[in-house]
Formats: sequence, C-alpha cells, structure tokens
Amino acid sequence: MGARETVEVTGHLMDSGILSRVLDDIRDYGCDYVIEQFDVGHEAHDPSSARITVEAEDDTSLQRLLMRLQTRGVNQVAVGDALTAEAEIPGVLPDGFYATTNLETRVRIGGAWHEVENPAMDCGLVVDEAPAGDVRVRTVPMSDVEAGMRCVVGASGIRVSVPRPAPVDDGLLAARGGSPTDRPQTVVVRQVADGMRQAREAGKRLLWVAGPGVVRTGASQALVSLVRAGFVDALFGGNALAAHDVESALYGTDLGGEVSAAGVEHGHEHRVRALNTVRKAGSIAAAVEAGVLTSGIMHALVTERKRFVLVGSVRDEGPLPDVHTDVLEGLRAMREEIHDVGYCLMLATQHHSVATGNILPATVPLVCVDLDPATVTRLADRGTHRGRGIVADVGLFLEQLSLELVPDYRRA
Amino acid sequence: MGARETVEVTGHLMDSGILSRVLDDIRDYGCDYVIEQFDVGHEAHDPSSARITVEAEDDTSLQRLLMRLQTRGVNQVAVGDALTAEAEIPGVLPDGFYATTNLETRVRIGGAWHEVENPAMDCGLVVDEAPAGDVRVRTVPMSDVEAGMRCVVGASGIRVSVPRPAPVDDGLLAARGGSPTDRPQTVVVRQVADGMRQAREAGKRLLWVAGPGVVRTGASQALVSLVRAGFVDALFGGNALAAHDVESALYGTDLGGEVSAAGVEHGHEHRVRALNTVRKAGSIAAAVEAGVLTSGIMHALVTERKRFVLVGSVRDEGPLPDVHTDVLEGLRAMREEIHDVGYCLMLATQHHSVATGNILPATVPLVCVDLDPATVTRLADRGTHRGRGIVADVGLFLEQLSLELVPDYRRA
Amino acid sequence: MGARETVEVTGHLMDSGILSRVLDDIRDYGCDYVIEQFDVGHEAHDPSSARITVEAEDDTSLQRLLMRLQTRGVNQVAVGDALTAEAEIPGVLPDGFYATTNLETRVRIGGAWHEVENPAMDCGLVVDEAPAGDVRVRTVPMSDVEAGMRCVVGASGIRVSVPRPAPVDDGLLAARGGSPTDRPQTVVVRQVADGMRQAREAGKRLLWVAGPGVVRTGASQALVSLVRAGFVDALFGGNALAAHDVESALYGTDLGGEVSAAGVEHGHEHRVRALNTVRKAGSIAAAVEAGVLTSGIMHALVTERKRFVLVGSVRDEGPLPDVHTDVLEGLRAMREEIHDVGYCLMLATQHHSVATGNILPATVPLVCVDLDPATVTRLADRGTHRGRGIVADVGLFLEQLSLELVPDYRRA
Amino acid sequence: MGARETVEVTGHLMDSGILSRVLDDIRDYGCDYVIEQFDVGHEAHDPSSARITVEAEDDTSLQRLLMRLQTRGVNQVAVGDALTAEAEIPGVLPDGFYATTNLETRVRIGGAWHEVENPAMDCGLVVDEAPAGDVRVRTVPMSDVEAGMRCVVGASGIRVSVPRPAPVDDGLLAARGGSPTDRPQTVVVRQVADGMRQAREAGKRLLWVAGPGVVRTGASQALVSLVRAGFVDALFGGNALAAHDVESALYGTDLGGEVSAAGVEHGHEHRVRALNTVRKAGSIAAAVEAGVLTSGIMHALVTERKRFVLVGSVRDEGPLPDVHTDVLEGLRAMREEIHDVGYCLMLATQHHSVATGNILPATVPLVCVDLDPATVTRLADRGTHRGRGIVADVGLFLEQLSLELVPDYRRA
Repeated sequence: MGARETVEVTGHLMDSGILSRVLDDIRDYGCDYVIEQFDVGHEAHDPSSARITVEAEDDTSLQRLLMRLQTRGVNQVAVGDALTAEAEIPGVLPDGFYATTNLETRVRIGGAWHEVENPAMDCGLVVDEAPAGDVRVRTVPMSDVEAGMRCVVGASGIRVSVPRPAPVDDGLLAARGGSPTDRPQTVVVRQVADGMRQAREAGKRLLWVAGPGVVRTGASQALVSLVRAGFVDALFGGNALAAHDVESALYGTDLGGEVSAAGVEHGHEHRVRALNTVRKAGSIAAAVEAGVLTSGIMHALVTERKRFVLVGSVRDEGPLPDVHTDVLEGLRAMREEIHDVGYCLMLATQHHSVATGNILPATVPLVCVDLDPATVTRLADRGTHRGRGIVADVGLFLEQLSLELVPDYRRA
Repeated sequence: MGARETVEVTGHLMDSGILSRVLDDIRDYGCDYVIEQFDVGHEAHDPSSARITVEAEDDTSLQRLLMRLQTRGVNQVAVGDALTAEAEIPGVLPDGFYATTNLETRVRIGGAWHEVENPAMDCGLVVDEAPAGDVRVRTVPMSDVEAGMRCVVGASGIRVSVPRPAPVDDGLLAARGGSPTDRPQTVVVRQVADGMRQAREAGKRLLWVAGPGVVRTGASQALVSLVRAGFVDALFGGNALAAHDVESALYGTDLGGEVSAAGVEHGHEHRVRALNTVRKAGSIAAAVEAGVLTSGIMHALVTERKRFVLVGSVRDEGPLPDVHTDVLEGLRAMREEIHDVGYCLMLATQHHSVATGNILPATVPLVCVDLDPATVTRLADRGTHRGRGIVADVGLFLEQLSLELVPDYRRA
Repeated sequence: MGARETVEVTGHLMDSGILSRVLDDIRDYGCDYVIEQFDVGHEAHDPSSARITVEAEDDTSLQRLLMRLQTRGVNQVAVGDALTAEAEIPGVLPDGFYATTNLETRVRIGGAWHEVENPAMDCGLVVDEAPAGDVRVRTVPMSDVEAGMRCVVGASGIRVSVPRPAPVDDGLLAARGGSPTDRPQTVVVRQVADGMRQAREAGKRLLWVAGPGVVRTGASQALVSLVRAGFVDALFGGNALAAHDVESALYGTDLGGEVSAAGVEHGHEHRVRALNTVRKAGSIAAAVEAGVLTSGIMHALVTERKRFVLVGSVRDEGPLPDVHTDVLEGLRAMREEIHDVGYCLMLATQHHSVATGNILPATVPLVCVDLDPATVTRLADRGTHRGRGIVADVGLFLEQLSLELVPDYRRA
Repeated sequence: MGARETVEVTGHLMDSGILSRVLDDIRDYGCDYVIEQFDVGHEAHDPSSARITVEAEDDTSLQRLLMRLQTRGVNQVAVGDALTAEAEIPGVLPDGFYATTNLETRVRIGGAWHEVENPAMDCGLVVDEAPAGDVRVRTVPMSDVEAGMRCVVGASGIRVSVPRPAPVDDGLLAARGGSPTDRPQTVVVRQVADGMRQAREAGKRLLWVAGPGVVRTGASQALVSLVRAGFVDALFGGNALAAHDVESALYGTDLGGEVSAAGVEHGHEHRVRALNTVRKAGSIAAAVEAGVLTSGIMHALVTERKRFVLVGSVRDEGPLPDVHTDVLEGLRAMREEIHDVGYCLMLATQHHSVATGNILPATVPLVCVDLDPATVTRLADRGTHRGRGIVADVGLFLEQLSLELVPDYRRA
C-alpha cells in the first residue's frame, strides 16, 4: 500500500459505537489501519480519543476513505489548507470533489478556518473569495454548479464535528436498546412537545414535513390548531397533502366538529375537481382570498401567514398551482426555508422527509412519525444524528400533541 | 351430477356482496347452480332474496357445500330434522359431522327448532336429550368429544342467521371503501367508547384480549384506570402480558407518574426473576395479598375482583403460576368467561385474539387494535361479522380511550 | 330530489360484486335509487343486467354521480350527444368537466361514437374536429389544457366498458379469497412468464417500472438477462434506480458472477461520485459510448436499444442527466411510451407505479411485485382492473422469472 | 456505593460494539464504573481487552449486574467457586439464582471448571454431584425445578464465552451496514445452502422450524424434496403447519405437479374435517400407515423416518393427535431434539422460532426467513449471536434452496 494518513477522533467513542463503525468503514474501503494511540476516559463520563494511521493503495482511494471517515467526525491530524479546483462544466463537480455531509464543517483556506454556511448532504463545497479577501464556503448541489466555481477537492483542510448525542433526559426517545415500537408513547409525545416549546422560546423556527396521511387520519383539526397556536413556521409537502386538504375542505362533510374522511372515499373524482377549482383561482392563497377555500390546513397557513413549499412528484394529479413541478426548483425553495430551524417534525411522508433530512443541518432535532417501522428506520438511519423515530398513527399522535401544546384544545 | 338441493338466502344481498361470495363458494367446491328466483328490493333499503338450486357430484360433496353455504346465511328450503350420529372414539367426531360457525344457529330436532347455546367456530354440534324430552344443542370442540355423544351430521335441519351489518352511524369504522389506515382516528376512538358504554348500560360484560405491547407502549396506566372505572370485566392474555406487567411493577422505575419501560430494556434477567418471585408467592393474587405486587394491570384486576384467563404458549418464560400450560384447558377456561359479553376489545395480540374470535358469538361487537395492518385484517377476516380493525399504536389508543371514558383522567 | 336519470349495467354483476359497489357509490354521493329491472342469468355463467333510476338533489350532483358510476361500467340508457365547453384558462378545465378513467371509453359526437385514443385516469376529454369532419377524442391532463380546447362536460353521450375479469386459468393470481401473501409463488411466477410470452407473441410491447430495490436485492443480473432476451421494451423509473445501477457498475465488486451490493453499503459517497461521472459524460448513453459504463441494467438498455424514461423526485441526489427534473415533462415522456404495451411489470417502486397505472389503459395486464403488502394493495386498488399483486422479494422473483424465460440462465 | 467487583472482557471489542453495550448495561442498572485498563490491538485484527471495576449500591444489585454482563462475555477477574443453594419449592428457583443465557458457560465447583451441558436461555443452573465426585452442571427451566435441587446463585465462579462473529465470507448475511431487505438474495440463498452442506458433512443434524406459510406459499414440494434429499433431520412446528399440510394433502387439487393452495381458500371446513380424519387414525404416522395420508411434508417426514415435534397454541383447531397440548411438555420434547444440531432454519413462524432460539446453543448458526421485517429483527435480536435474518417470501426462498441443494430438482 502506498498512501497513508494519520487521523484522530475524540468523543464518547465507545458509548456510541462510533469506533467500531470507523473500523468497519476502513475495511469496507479495502484499506488497512494501525491504532497509534487510544485514550479511554477513566471515569464513566470522560471522553475518549483515538489516533489511527490509515493506509490505502493509492492517494485517490485514501482521499475517498478520508472523506468517508469525516462523516463519523474523524479528521486528519495534519493541518493543511483545503485544495480546490475549478468546475469546468455546468452541473458537474471537478474530479475528486469533496462530497459533503450535513454535519458542522469547517474548511481551512489561506491558513484560516471558515465555517460552511449551510451544511447539507451530497453536495460540493464552493469557496467564494471576495476581492477584499473575505472568504465564504457554502454547499452547492451538483445540479447548481456553474462553470468557474471554485470547489474543494480531497479531504485535506476540512474538519467535521459530530453533534453530541441527545441528552440523557431525552433517553426514552433514543433508538438504543429496543425497537421503536416499544416505547411509552404518551411520554414520547410530551418530550416532543417540550422540545418544540424550547425551540420556540429560543427564537428558532419550527419546520414540519407532512404527507396526505395527516388528512386521511383526521388530524387536520389538530394540525390547524397547532398552526393557529404558532407551532408551525414552515411546512414542506407534496401535491398530495395539499390536494387531500383542499378536497376535504371543499367536499368533506362535517361530523360534529370533526373533519370527515368521507371525501376521500369518493375516489379521485372529487380530488381532480378540487384541484381544477384552485387552478382556476390561480393559487391556494387566491382561493382563500376569493372565499373559495375556507378551512383546512392550507387555509390556516395562508391566513396565519406561514410559509409552505410544495414540491411535485410524478404521481401527482393536477397539480395545484403552488406546486413546484421541477424538483430542482422545489429543492431550491426548500433550501431557502431551512434557515433558523430549531425543530423539525416529519409526519407520514417519505420522499419529502428524506429530501429535508438531506438539507437540514445535523444539529437540528428531528422527529419522524410514521405507522410503518421501515420508513421510520430509514429516516433515522440517514445520517440524521439528532433524529428520532416514532412508530405511531399520525392521527392519534397529533391529537395528543395538540392536547399538550394548545391550551383548551378540545375543551372549548 | 347426482345430488341437488334448493337453498335460499334473504338480506341485503347486493349491498353486502354476499351473493357473489356464495356463487364463488359453489364454484370452488366444484359444484353447479341455477338461480331459480331472485327478488331484488325495489327501493334502496328493501331486502332482497334468492332461491338457488345447487348440484354436486354426490351427496357427500353436496352436504359439505351446504355446510359451507350456511356460513353465509344460506339455508335449505326443505325443512327436515337434523340427522345425528353417535361419536364412537373420544376426541373424534362422526364422519360427515356438521362443522360449526360462530353465527346464531338453530337445529331442528323432533320437529322443533332449538337454539345452539354457545355458538363457536370449528366445533361439532352435540344434542343432549333429557328423559323428559328436554332438548339442548351446544357446540363441543373436537378435543372434548366423548364416546356416546350424539352429534349432528350433514346440513339438514339447520338454520343459520347472519347478523345485520353494523348500523350506519358506525360507518366510519367499517372496512368498506378504504384501507384501515385511512380513518380519522379520534372519531374512531369515540365510537369505541360509545359502544362500550352502551354495552355496559345494557348489562353486558366487557371483554379484553391484550398482549404485552400494552405494557411496552406505556399504556398500563390507562388500562388500570379503565379497570378501576369498571370498563374491564374479563381479560384474556398470555404469560407475556402478565410477565411484562409484573416485571414493570417489580423493577420499573417511576418517571413522574408514568410507568417506565426501563425494565423492558434490561432484557430477560429482570423478567425471569419477577416470574420466580410470583411463583414463590404461589399465584398473582397471593403476590398481591402478600404485598409483593402493589401496582400494574394484574394488581388492578385482582383488587377490583375482575376475571382473567392466561393461556400459555411454547415461547413462554416461567411461566406465571396462573397460566394454563395446557392450551385445551386454557381454552375451556376462556369458554367459561364468554357468557354475556357485549363488547370485546383486542389489543396487540394475535393468537389469543384469534382464539377469542373463534369462541365469541358473531353478534358481539369486536374491535381489534394493532400497529400491524396484516394482523388487523386477519382478525377482521376471520368470520367476525361485527369485527372492526384499527391500525394504531396501542399506547396512544388507550390514552385517548381513557380520556373519553374515565372522568378526570390525567387531570387529577 | 329534482334530477334523475336511468342507467344500465351488464356483466357478471354478482360474481364480481360490482353491483354492491354501485349501490354504495349512490349512497355515498347522497343520492337515491330505484332498481327498475334486474335480469339475473339463469345458469352459472350467464351475464346479468340491471337498470336503475338514480335521483339526486340537483343536476350538478347528478352529473357527478353519473361520472362516478361510469368508473364501474354503468352507462346512461338515454343516448344523446356529449356536451362540450371551451377551456378558457390554460391548465384549467371548464366547470363540470368529465373526469376520465383508464377504461375503454367512447364518446358520442354528432350522432357517432368515437373511441378515446389514450384512456388515462384523472384527465379531461378533448375533442378535436378537423375541417373535414374527422373527429378525434383524447385524454389531456389538466396541466396540458390549452385555452380554446373543446372539452367534454357532464356524463351525457359517454359509454365506458369495464374489462372482463381475468380468465379462470389466471385464477391463482386473483385477489379473491385470500390475502396476497397466501399463494404458491412459483406457480405465480410461471403465470407471469406465460403472460409476458403471450403478449410478445401478439406483437405487443413489454413495459417495466422498477425501483432501486431491483439493484439492492441483487436482481440486476436477472433483469439484464431479460433485457438481452428481449423481454423489456421500455423501462420507467426514477433517478434512484439508475443511480444505484450506475454506482454498482462503477464501484461494485464482482462476487463469482454476481453483482455485489457492496457499493450500496458504502453510503452516499460512492453514489454522488458515480452521478458526477455520468453528468460529466453528458448522458447515460454517452457514458456507455465512452466506455465509462460497461455493465448493469442501464448499460443493457442502451446497448440493446431499448427505451427508458427516468422521472425525478424531490429526494434525488444528482440527478443523472437523463432524468426529467420537471415531473410534468417526465409524465409526458411516459405517455409517449405507453402505446402498444401488452404487459406491464411493476417492481418495488410506488410513485412511478402509481403514475404508470394512471396512464395505462385498464385493459393491459399489470403485475405489481413488492415486499410490502400495503404497496401491493394500494396499486391493485387503484382502478387497475387487470392488476395483480405479488408480495415477494424482488430479487428472488426476478431470479425465478429469468429461469422461466431465459434459456440457459444460470446454467452457462 | 458499597459493593464492587473487577471484570474483564477480551475479543474484538470495538469492531463488534460490545464495549458500548457493556457500558450501557452498567448505566441502565444504576451502577458506576472505572476502566482500569484497556489494551487495544495495534493491528487491524488484533483482539483487544478491557478490565473494568464496577460499583453498585449493594451486593444484590452487584450480583444482578454481574449476571447481566456475562451475557456480553464479561467475566469476573477474581476466581472463586460458584455458590449454590437448594431449591425448596418445586418450580421455584432459590433467591438470587443465576439466570442463564444460551452462551457457552463454565461453572467452577470444587476448584474445577465444568462445562454446562445444554446451554439455554432463562433457566437456572443445577449442579449434580455423584457420590464418586463426578460433577455435572445443566440448565433446568424454572418449571422443571424440583425441591432439593442444588442451584447456582450469584455470578461468582461462572465464565461465559461469546462466540466469534460470523466469518468474513459470510459477510453479506450480516446485519451490519444495511437493512435486512437490502441484500442480493440469490447470493444469500447460496450461502445458506453452503452452510447446510458443511453442517451435514461435519456430521451435524439440521433443524427446521416452520410455520403454515410454508404450505400457503406453495413451498411444500420444495420442502418435501429437501426432506427426501436428507437436509431435514428434525422439524419443530405447531398444529397450524401440520394441519395445513394434511388439509392440502387430503383436499388440495394438483395443478400440473404443484400442490395447490385451493384447499386453503375453502376456509376452515376442510381443515377441521382433515383434523378429524387424522384424529380418527390415531396419529399422523398411523394415517400414513393406513394409506390415508399419502403426500405432503408430514408424510415425507414419517416415511423418511425424520423427527418432528409439534407444540400447540391457544388458537389451534383440533388439534392433531401428535400435538403437545401442554406447552411445557412440548418444550421438553423440543429440548430432547436439540442435541448435535449444526444448522437451524426458521421459516415464517414466530412463537416456535423464539422458543427454539431460547434452547439452542448460541454457537449454532441460525437463519430466519420471514416476509415481515419486524419478525426477522425480533428473532435476530434475541441473543442469537450466530443468527441471520432474511426478509423474503418463503415460497421463493425454498424453491431457490432446493435448486441449490437437490440434484435435478424441477428438471426431472
């Protein structure tokens, strides 16, 4: 083997099992290692640290392994500047480009460390240097790369921080020691409510990602009450969520205060008609203004002046005029809304949740609720270090959450 | 084809799709048919009726088809007495025995109709004739057949009634027109609460069947409150439910009023120790009396003097001394507790729910709650005409149900 | 009630349960009915027919019910011309527009019946009348409506045919009488192979819709062999399928002839690098031509000159240059490839399968294979009359299918 | 804190994540620790070792923690003799009893180490000392404890060995780095076939645990061929497996060589009749001898003189005369058949698989195949160190396995 580098990692290495994953990675990449030094904390809560020399066949393999290890918070000991190369083709990163994670990342340029402005997964790192010497480093999706952009290549001069694991009092939510179906759910709901309250008190924004199951399980009323009580700053979703909501608002019957699911059972005819109605109005907001749309989740978001981004999919009927039919444009709109998010809830939707998880910094607490354990696991696995999964019916979950957060909910 | 018989069926044949299932059955049994007469109601809510002549290769095939059709409420036009034969071998029914359903069934003996006392599935029908001429007909499981018992053979002289479909105001619960995951869950919980209240007001008993998921999802507190408020008359379960409950009572830590699931995470060591403790006491009730067991579901059942039947399985640890390790004895104990049940809830357990569904008359409303749609569907399919399935987390479901049924629950 | 209309339906009404669904619809739409006439076939296989007068509160409700009933093959007795209205706003259908199904549909214009050229769900019907009087009727998605288009409104002058149920020898595949998990799977695979062979012999095209699970379960080799043996004419998918395939081709290791899933385990780093490589080449075909991409499914499609359409989603990395990032454009490209399809297989993907099911005529046999019973049920329910669901691992399914269809597969 | 003890553990501590789980355990039990020494191997494949002093509030807590840690292969440094106490009540272990795992366990009695004869989970350890001084140590289930038995208490004098992780070439089966649904399934089947062949060549017995899904998915023919080819030495199951098999043999129709599932669709009537037929014959073997049962899995086991143990459940119909209706007796019969097992396959059944996993030594390779990922995960989690899970349809899996193992299967 020809290329080698010494790396180090510090933290609760053994508690979190991080070290075993690092060694797995090295083997998976066909490389070898020698553990140079290992300091295990003496007491229960001391951090430990390791220094490891990794060896690869050639420099290309080594650089790729080093980039991989950074997703675990493993950084090079040697401090040099980051290398960059210029993008030559629009939409294409230079060879050997650094592929990002959504972890906190710093890049060394001209001897100084610069924080990456918008950590996100699977992007390139672009360095902007103003004439005055002001340096900015930001993530740019492959599709938004422009010729002439200065992109980081290789793993030199980059440091990544893995967020501390969730605090102890959040323990019941953690995946450790049991399947996600085996937890006292009312305690879990209370913890989510506390997390949202704290984020709001800290001046952070609350982001929701929701699928049509919210409407189908009769949770619209609960979600509307949370919008009105100020617990929804932005909502991401697809055409299906908004279409179900509008259909229910236009054609659903009201059963003693509950939005019924009756509209859903009628099949697609109601839905396409509802979609046409909003398309005629021009937009959801225009339909609200015109008095055509008078209830439901989208109505609440419009009247409470909250943000929403709807991104389309190949299976959409219609779609609603507010839906981004170009998924890259939709993703750009989502990236615009990520700033200052302090808590994120993902409800019964997979594609939009994965997309959001990719662009949300790993430091933001994130809760995924779905009836399907596989979806919950998939989202929790996807590099979302602060992610928690709850296997539950969205309807009952939102009902409980409203009871916790909205004063006088259901008691009026 | 040699054997033929004319049968008739009355009811909402087309609404319920019953007729298509009848014709499917005839074809599946390799028989033929001619529809002699078909009266479709003129107005929307008129019942319809059909008279069909079925033809089979021989009488054995015909009798088996006729028995099959009775599970759909299709009876023979010709009225004769039921035929009987004597059981010769203990535990074995005579050839050509009538296999029962859990539908309301009448048997004609000596020209008079007799109601089957305890409708249940997959049993034989035994006729007891007292010297005074008093006739009783009851279901007897194959394993309880004794030599000399007089058993019904063939389908002659038997009439079965299919219960009316669930009333309209119960419509949202019905399986029609949508998957069981697509329903407004808080409405559903309210309907279950109403159904339980009505059954109790009618002087009926409330039966629960529960699995260990009740403890694991933190629903113990809710279930205890329902026991104390008088909404649990009898509970069926396995060793796992009671073992989890006892383990949690003996070793669980208390988190601000919530029973924690911490005990569960410690693995089996806590559980086998808890089981040994109760075995030493002699029984669950003795452990309560001795002050060893002071909280939890089993404790509440004992102190409120409610009935419970625990039946074992091959996978049990221990088991607890109250558990029937012989499944046939366990089933007999369950049959003893079926009388006067007016509502049945099945929570997160499959084997005990199937067993209960088999011995519960089809007229008893029955609700099955499980996180796994497959389990819900399997239970609802199993001939349980009044059965309803709810795909939901048991923890959140019971929390909501307690909020509906128990005054001041969680507000104390 | 003010508006009424007489409708009729013919077919195996009771076998298929169609009549009960029709009556359910009428009630769900808040309307009433009188059954005027009902002819039940005398013998087992005679078709039956019914004539029903439906009543609604007003004409708008009536027209909507009539459109709904047409999805069941129920047509109006009275024969008039179809009514049309001009679209005024691009992307918006006129009020009261006829919402289509994917059933065979004829429209009466000027006293003559015209077949709808491309049946598809949730579209409008546009009438093109050439100066010479030549009339064409076609479906147009809401988003493709242009101002000035002549669109059908209401349900008059439209006749819909429900395809005959699958033939008897296809019986094991049918959903009737058992959950989709309870079938002899090797028999099912053989039936699918027969169906594909027959379609090909009839000169029809074979369409596949596939998700990344095909690559992950190691089924690439099997699918490649089917492409080479001429059993894949067109393939629909998303970025994920093609990205996994390209990643596996560029970075996967070869285990004794099997494509390994090793690449997958390395996480996203390999994938984004693979995507960048193809983006640099310009397209998948260019990467094949340049010798960069030398194996895998996409390589086989390119070298065998088969068609593929990739449509993007919000969660895509990259994406590959061939992916339609605008979902409406993607759907248009898919509609271009639907012609002459005689058999369709959907493998482990939900969004693209739903989209394909919407634009595929209901007469095309369609098989959906997925490990998740919920996905299988959802696809089979979606108006796909010839649809069949198979709950199975895609890897083992394709292996078996190749053994059936490709001579000397795995024996070379 | 009052009680302390020093423990040590050796092995691939970091690769396997074992150390983090040990520290989790200590915290979960409310104890504290100091890491006295930690030797991490220098090279990639060196084993590492740790010496840790644990502290608990009192000796009872300490002993329980020490027993818990032994499930991880963590043993006390201090070597003393095991302590024993006499059981006083039948069916009850003495206070402070040692709760077993299914790991290789040695017990120190009179200064000498004795191997536990039949490692199994959740049992007590009983010491038999012959007058000649010959010492035997064996596991005894709580329910089989007799008064006067000498049982081990506390964790002193006990050493447990954790089996080495599965070898590298078995890597694709391992759970690491991906969900169990994401694997090349044909490769996996080949590895299972290799494992079975090797076990057989080593003179070991092959144990199967199977549920009724084997019959329902049409895999009977494949399993029969494996029985005949000598790849099934013993089979564990419930009444359902045997009942479905017998029903299919007595009433199923034959479709060109395939056993049809038709019998299943007819519902329970066929099944109870089949059960009665075998009950009349006296046993499955008697039914084979009498020429009543002439095909199917049970028939093959009887004619090939293979062992089977059927254990009942509360939901059983019948049951068959061979079924142990007392679950404790059934479990005893299963324990009798565990000897010399070298490979175990668990197919589509949960209760019997869990029970088997409990009594099977952890050193035996074990593969669980089920369509439900939750079942697969549950079984793999249950202390089965050599356990592997495969999410797949049992029908296609067995078909492939027969193609691998049985010469000329399906080519005859």
